[in-house]
Amino acid sequence: MPRNPDIARASLRHAAIELFAENGFEATTAAQIAARAGVTERTFFRHFPDKREVLFDGQAILGDGLTEAIGRAEAGLPPLGVLRFAFDAVVPMLEANRPFSEPRMKIIAATPALQEREVAKHVALVRLVADALVTRGVEARQASLAAEIGMAVFGHALSGWFAAPGSKLADHIESGFAAMQGLAR
Amino acid sequence: MPRNPDIARASLRHAAIELFAENGFEATTAAQIAARAGVTERTFFRHFPDKREVLFDGQAILGDGLTEAIGRAEAGLPPLGVLRFAFDAVVPMLEANRPFSEPRMKIIAATPALQEREVAKHVALVRLVADALVTRGVEARQASLAAEIGMAVFGHALSGWFAAPGSKLADHIESGFAAMQGLAR
Repeated sequence: MPRNPDIARASLRHAAIELFAENGFEATTAAQIAARAGVTERTFFRHFPDKREVLFDGQAILGDGLTEAIGRAEAGLPPLGVLRFAFDAVVPMLEANRPFSEPRMKIIAATPALQEREVAKHVALVRLVADALVTRGVEARQASLAAEIGMAVFGHALSGWFAAPGSKLADHIESGFAAMQGLAR
Repeated sequence: MPRNPDIARASLRHAAIELFAENGFEATTAAQIAARAGVTERTFFRHFPDKREVLFDGQAILGDGLTEAIGRAEAGLPPLGVLRFAFDAVVPMLEANRPFSEPRMKIIAATPALQEREVAKHVALVRLVADALVTRGVEARQASLAAEIGMAVFGHALSGWFAAPGSKLADHIESGFAAMQGLAR
């Protein structure tokens, strides 16, 4: 039974993905996830308010990674340059997480109730990125526009990456920014 | 009592906005909206499945207007040029609708249950715009990126317009596209 809280959390995520993929999201209970992860149900609920949240744990980690990178990007970069730097900075984390995020996407695509939360989480992530730009001194409305555009490019890169097994996310970020430039020409 | 269905619909929208602004969204019933509009409750439900939908009627009209304009934009324009043309094309409709859309925005901002639907409707509108670009022959992934970026610029323009009473939406669309260009420099 994992004692380290981070390991317990990772085990719960792993067990949840397995069970959702095997039996579907609706048919899986928090108790089953806890049992598969080798922890008590109480431990499950110490980490997650419900079984849905297990699937959105990564979004908080991604948000922290982006915020941190936006804060340390070189001074003087334009807002989309800062975001480009931040997206590149979280590539290793996302590459390492692909065995989790790929089945996760399929589970969400198959479950309408999860798509709603996915959209809400995405909106919150865009706001977080905008706030991190404001902290750097970018004017609020400009920060919000940059966050929306940047995250659209990032989403485009991620979907291209998921669609092409074995490809590199960094290449998709590169071509996403190139595609953005091409849209106005 | 309005007999023309379009007039009945417009009267219901008008009555709903008045009542939501006076008494709040939660405290207002479909029956009260129908009474204020001078129609029967049955007429209300012939036009709208529930009182929430009255607030989102404009989004369908906007979607139709954008789709139509995307279809007739000059051949050879780049995707963002097509969207710029379409946004300019719906300006008169949105300017005329401001007495409705301004209180509407305040009601939504005050009602969390409506924000969720607002986000879902926005996602659907972005998809509609992307589909209209695909119909013109734009490649699907490029169309989806253009729709997201274009609608981010359009949303930026709309929020600037709402924040500045007496200003012209066309000017905000102009400066929104300029702001987008500036984000990468």
